[in-house]
Amino acid sequence: MNMRSMDGDVRVPAGALRAFMERAFAAEGFAAEQAAQIADVLMQADLFGIESHGAQRMMYYHRNIASGSAVVGAEPEILRQTPVSALVDGHFAMGHLAARMGMQLAIDKAKAAGVGICAVRNSSHYGIAGYYTLMAAREGLAAFSMTNTGPIMTPTFGVEMMLGTNPIAFCMPADPVPFWFDASTTVVTLGKVEVHAKRGRVMPEGWTIGADGQPCRDAQRMNDSILAGEMGGILPLGGAGETLGGHKGYGLGVMVEALTGVLAQGLTAPDMQGAHGDHTCHFFMAFDPAMFGDAGEIRAGMSRYLARLRESERAPGCARIYTPGEKAFAAQQDRLERGVPVENKTLAELRQIASELGIEGI
Amino acid sequence: MNMRSMDGDVRVPAGALRAFMERAFAAEGFAAEQAAQIADVLMQADLFGIESHGAQRMMYYHRNIASGSAVVGAEPEILRQTPVSALVDGHFAMGHLAARMGMQLAIDKAKAAGVGICAVRNSSHYGIAGYYTLMAAREGLAAFSMTNTGPIMTPTFGVEMMLGTNPIAFCMPADPVPFWFDASTTVVTLGKVEVHAKRGRVMPEGWTIGADGQPCRDAQRMNDSILAGEMGGILPLGGAGETLGGHKGYGLGVMVEALTGVLAQGLTAPDMQGAHGDHTCHFFMAFDPAMFGDAGEIRAGMSRYLARLRESERAPGCARIYTPGEKAFAAQQDRLERGVPVENKTLAELRQIASELGIEGI
Repeated sequence: MNMRSMDGDVRVPAGALRAFMERAFAAEGFAAEQAAQIADVLMQADLFGIESHGAQRMMYYHRNIASGSAVVGAEPEILRQTPVSALVDGHFAMGHLAARMGMQLAIDKAKAAGVGICAVRNSSHYGIAGYYTLMAAREGLAAFSMTNTGPIMTPTFGVEMMLGTNPIAFCMPADPVPFWFDASTTVVTLGKVEVHAKRGRVMPEGWTIGADGQPCRDAQRMNDSILAGEMGGILPLGGAGETLGGHKGYGLGVMVEALTGVLAQGLTAPDMQGAHGDHTCHFFMAFDPAMFGDAGEIRAGMSRYLARLRESERAPGCARIYTPGEKAFAAQQDRLERGVPVENKTLAELRQIASELGIEGI
Repeated sequence: MNMRSMDGDVRVPAGALRAFMERAFAAEGFAAEQAAQIADVLMQADLFGIESHGAQRMMYYHRNIASGSAVVGAEPEILRQTPVSALVDGHFAMGHLAARMGMQLAIDKAKAAGVGICAVRNSSHYGIAGYYTLMAAREGLAAFSMTNTGPIMTPTFGVEMMLGTNPIAFCMPADPVPFWFDASTTVVTLGKVEVHAKRGRVMPEGWTIGADGQPCRDAQRMNDSILAGEMGGILPLGGAGETLGGHKGYGLGVMVEALTGVLAQGLTAPDMQGAHGDHTCHFFMAFDPAMFGDAGEIRAGMSRYLARLRESERAPGCARIYTPGEKAFAAQQDRLERGVPVENKTLAELRQIASELGIEGI
C-alpha cells in the first residue's frame, strides 16, 4: 500500500492517512466532527509539504492530551464580542478547535460587517498558521493568522529565549491559487533544527547562537539546549545583530506577541512551558476586499502581480521564481496523486499510538 | 546658532528646522496648515534619528513638486466607504497629506466602530511609515501603516527589481513609550546604500546582488544601477536564496504590495517610475484594544513584556537589549535638547531651496 519515496521513507495515500488521524482523535475522546476538524489541519500541513506540522506531530498531540496540556472536551468560550471583534478563552482545548472557532468568528463578522478580529487565549498548539487564512480565502476574504508559542527566539543582542516561532500568515484570493504566505519570524523553525539534528547535519551559520552569543552550527547541541530552556536559541529573521536586519525579525516577533499574548491577555512566551508552548494565544483577522472595489477585479489584480513576479528576470542558474503559496499548492497536487511522504520514524510513532489507543493502525 | 555634531555635521535647533520646513512648503504653495502637516512628518523622522527621511528629503520633495509628481492643491477624495473602511484617491497629492487623511479616517472609524481600514491610491512618497501609527497610538489605538514604493527589491531567485522598500509599521500603546515598530521588508533601505556610496564605504555582503545574481558590495555601483533601473537590486530581509529565510522577507514584501497597490487598485512597484516611486499606495488600519479587555490592563501588559525583553540576559559584550521604538524616542529626547544633526550637504540643499523659493534660509 505504501510506496517508496524520495522525501519521506514511504508514501501513504492521503485518504488512508486522514482516516487514521480521525480514528486516533476519536479514540482520544473527541466527537467525530472535532476529530475530523483536527485531522483536517494536520492533513493540510502534510498535503502542503510541511511535514513538520502533519502526521509527524501526532505523537506530540497524543502526549499533550495524556498530560492534560490539551483538554479533550474543553469548550472554547466567547468572553466578549462586538460586531467586529471577539475575545475567546480556549479553556486549553486542542489549539486547532479553538483556532477554527476564532477564525470562523472573524469570517462571520467580516461577512456581516466587512472586517472581523478575534483574539484567542488559553489555547494550545494550533498547527500551521496558514490553515486558518485559507478558511477565509475560500470565502473570498483576505486574512491574517498569528500565534505565539513557547520561547525559542533570542532578542537582538540577547541570549535568553524570550519569543516564540511567532509566525505571520496572510492570504488573499488569487488565481490559479491564492496568495498564501505563512512564515515564522525566526530564521528557521525549531523543526528545521530538529531535522538537522536527527540527520546528523551541521547547520548553516546564522540560524542559532549559543549561550556565549556566538554562532553555533551544532544542531544536536542546539536542539537539546533549546528544549532544556538553556541560554542561546534561534535567531530572528535577519540573523544576529543589526547588520542584516536581525532587529527587524525581532521586531516582527514582538509584534506577533503584542497581537497574541498581550492583546488576548494570556501568557507570553517566557511564561510558557516547553518550546512548542502550552496555553498559546492566537490572532485572527479577516476582511472583505469588496469594501474597496470590485472583488473580482482586485482578485485579478493580485493574480496579475503574482504572474509578473513569476515571469520576472531570473538570477543566472536559477530555474524559476516562486510566489508564496505556489510550492504548497504544487505539493498538494503531488500528494493527492502520489500519497503523503512519511518517515519510518513517524510511521512507527503512528503505529505506537494505534496500539496504545487500541485502534486499527496504518 | 548651529553646534558641531558627531553624527551630522551640525546641530540645528528643532524649532528652527521645523519653522524653515513650514516656510518652504508654504512658499511651494501649500496652505499654512498643510505646510505644517508635511513638516511635522519630516520633523518626526529627524527627531527619531531617521535622518534619511527628514530634512535630507526636502530637495527630493522640492523636485517632485516642480515636476508635478506631487501636486500642490490636489485634494484627496474618498471614493467609497463603509463604517469600517475607506478607499481614498490621493489625486497625486503630497503623500503626507493623503496619508494623514487615510490614517485619520481609519482612526475615526476605529473610535466609532472598533476598527478602521483605509486603502489609499495615487498618493506619493509619504515619509516614515511609522508616523501614521503614532497618530493612532496617541488616541490609545493599535495601528498598522504600510506603503509600496518604486522597485528596489529583487524576488528570491530573481534579479529584476519587482518590489519596493515595502515597510511594515505597527504601533501599540505602552509606557514609558509606545511599542513602535517600523521596518522595510528589504535587508536595508536604499538610503543605507546611498550613505555607503556617499562615504565611499564597502557594503556588508548580503545587502545587494548584481545583475549576475552574485553578491555585490560596491555601494556606488549598486546605487547607480538601482536608480537606473538596471538588473540586480536590494535583497529581501533574510538575504539571497532561502537558507537564511530570504523567501520570508520576499513574501512579506509581496504581502505589503497586496495590501497597498493591489487592494487600492493603484500602481504596483514594477509600473512606477523611479526608486522612491510616484503614485504610491498605502494601507492603514487602526483598532481599539478596549474591544478585547480593559485598555489600561492591555497597555500595562504590553509595557511589562517590553520591560522583560529589555531586562533579559544579554549576549556577552552587548551593552543592552532594545525594544522597538526605544531608540527613536531616546533620539527624540536628545534632538529636542541638543538640536537635529544635519549634514553640510543637506544644509546646502536647504539653502538652495530657500534661494529658489525666495524665503529666509536656515
